Amino acid sequence: MFGRLLVRGRALAGEKPYRGVFRVKEYISFRRPDGTPSFGRIEGDTVHDLGGQGAAAYMRDALEQGLGGLSQTAVFPRSNIVLLPVIPNPGKILCVGLNYATHVKETGREQKEHPAIFTRWADTLIAAGDPLVRPRESVRFDYEGELAVIIRKGGRRISREQAFDHIAGYSIFNDASARDWQRHNIQFTPGKNFPGTGSLGPSLIPAGEIADIGSQRVQTRLNGELVQDQPVSDMIWNIAIIVEYCSTFTELRPGDVIATGTPGGVGDKRTPPLYMKSGDVVEVSVGAIGTLFNPVVDER
Amino acid sequence: MFGRLLVRGRALAGEKPYRGVFRVKEYISFRRPDGTPSFGRIEGDTVHDLGGQGAAAYMRDALEQGLGGLSQTAVFPRSNIVLLPVIPNPGKILCVGLNYATHVKETGREQKEHPAIFTRWADTLIAAGDPLVRPRESVRFDYEGELAVIIRKGGRRISREQAFDHIAGYSIFNDASARDWQRHNIQFTPGKNFPGTGSLGPSLIPAGEIADIGSQRVQTRLNGELVQDQPVSDMIWNIAIIVEYCSTFTELRPGDVIATGTPGGVGDKRTPPLYMKSGDVVEVSVGAIGTLFNPVVDER
Repeated sequence: MFGRLLVRGRALAGEKPYRGVFRVKEYISFRRPDGTPSFGRIEGDTVHDLGGQGAAAYMRDALEQGLGGLSQTAVFPRSNIVLLPVIPNPGKILCVGLNYATHVKETGREQKEHPAIFTRWADTLIAAGDPLVRPRESVRFDYEGELAVIIRKGGRRISREQAFDHIAGYSIFNDASARDWQRHNIQFTPGKNFPGTGSLGPSLIPAGEIADIGSQRVQTRLNGELVQDQPVSDMIWNIAIIVEYCSTFTELRPGDVIATGTPGGVGDKRTPPLYMKSGDVVEVSVGAIGTLFNPVVDER
Repeated sequence: MFGRLLVRGRALAGEKPYRGVFRVKEYISFRRPDGTPSFGRIEGDTVHDLGGQGAAAYMRDALEQGLGGLSQTAVFPRSNIVLLPVIPNPGKILCVGLNYATHVKETGREQKEHPAIFTRWADTLIAAGDPLVRPRESVRFDYEGELAVIIRKGGRRISREQAFDHIAGYSIFNDASARDWQRHNIQFTPGKNFPGTGSLGPSLIPAGEIADIGSQRVQTRLNGELVQDQPVSDMIWNIAIIVEYCSTFTELRPGDVIATGTPGGVGDKRTPPLYMKSGDVVEVSVGAIGTLFNPVVDER
């Protein structure tokens, strides 16, 4: 229905085995059959475990030295592992708000000279295929498809010219938002930090694998309907500028996640509004980065 | 010059030995003479080391079982330890904005029905006595004296009636803010997360030691001049309501810090503005909780 990307997203979400074209370099975090966390390279139906070498049980701890140089410690069939958020334990999740002019316009806000940065905690994260959880307290649960940037090498005051040397690669983020709680006051924190509302995955694609990140389209589909669709190049502040800006006020470290903002088309600003409800399925694709699939459930 | 509280703050800041009245229960985090982190009880010039029992090297890991039941593993003279932020490694720092009507008014904002919550990362924290660092990029570096609440027992959806069962005690926070970066856009994150801008300490006073938290006055002095002065009871959302509200959208855990907001009188809203500069000294006292003293330096 949505082509290869959806198939790949669903494959990683555990719905059915992957049958499409695979990438040479595509990395995931997962639980091994024994329940321990690890990370590795996925290739078709095969997961090459790269964890447990030295001290690195988590992907973030292996990013700086580079994933490409690790040799496998085990091999699992895809069906025997449980996918985790691509970085399950980022030290920092920085979210860029209002980074597409269409979204700035639909919110009725004015465009400023600098990005809007808010934060999530890691305990909001879920993996591809996991359910997004509409909190009991929210009746305005909304999607936000985004490109995620994963930091490889930490630093402070990273110049825009040096930014890509600090980036491991890309993933996809669904910054699901309790709009009612986001608008309780002037800071977004409450609406962006309910557990089970931040989907990150399915995989990390090394930045070097993507020839033109700007031309990749951020596309969100709710129950198959295309609701957001813009190229990454439409961002007001591009990736290099965002890395420069964020690293000016805080130290970035390996595995930190930057969610680069969502295009126009959010459900909250539609007429009538379009919120996510139990039974819905939402997919965010970012061109060659893949597709992030999640069902939606009500919190019980 | 400022009486006993200042003496106590300076004593803990390492300026001179403590000579005033001491509390029976007053806890600090510190580095031992060998450099390892620990926590313990301070009594006059004596630090009773309570760390290293079982797994707890940090105070946050001992809070739920209770600090009062721990027996000392070593004793150090005050002059031989280095004070740390009272919780050096909180998982979450939740900051309440706009929680005193005087401050809401001076910012020109309207009062909402719910609190404004923004966040800091733990790598912004410094201890009493450490210098607050004015970032190179900021020319509007401001103080914000606040009462800090330290979580003892974690939980989700903690009712206001149960809130105090989840609180270990109180400390003091100086939420020093790069106003220029705080106003870059509509989210406060950049202005609140430069390293060396969040002072937390000097000590934790168990909630049970403070008969009436509402009557304690939050007082900030810049170079001796009283610039903020209101009782905790002036908060728009009181401690119990804040715990209830925050634990609705995120899980609180032992050692989490809630900075409860600052009274009116911030430097940025004065005529002319009053910013912190190298060579300044700033003290925040919260009645019986003590005094948090920090000098100010320019980042080099």
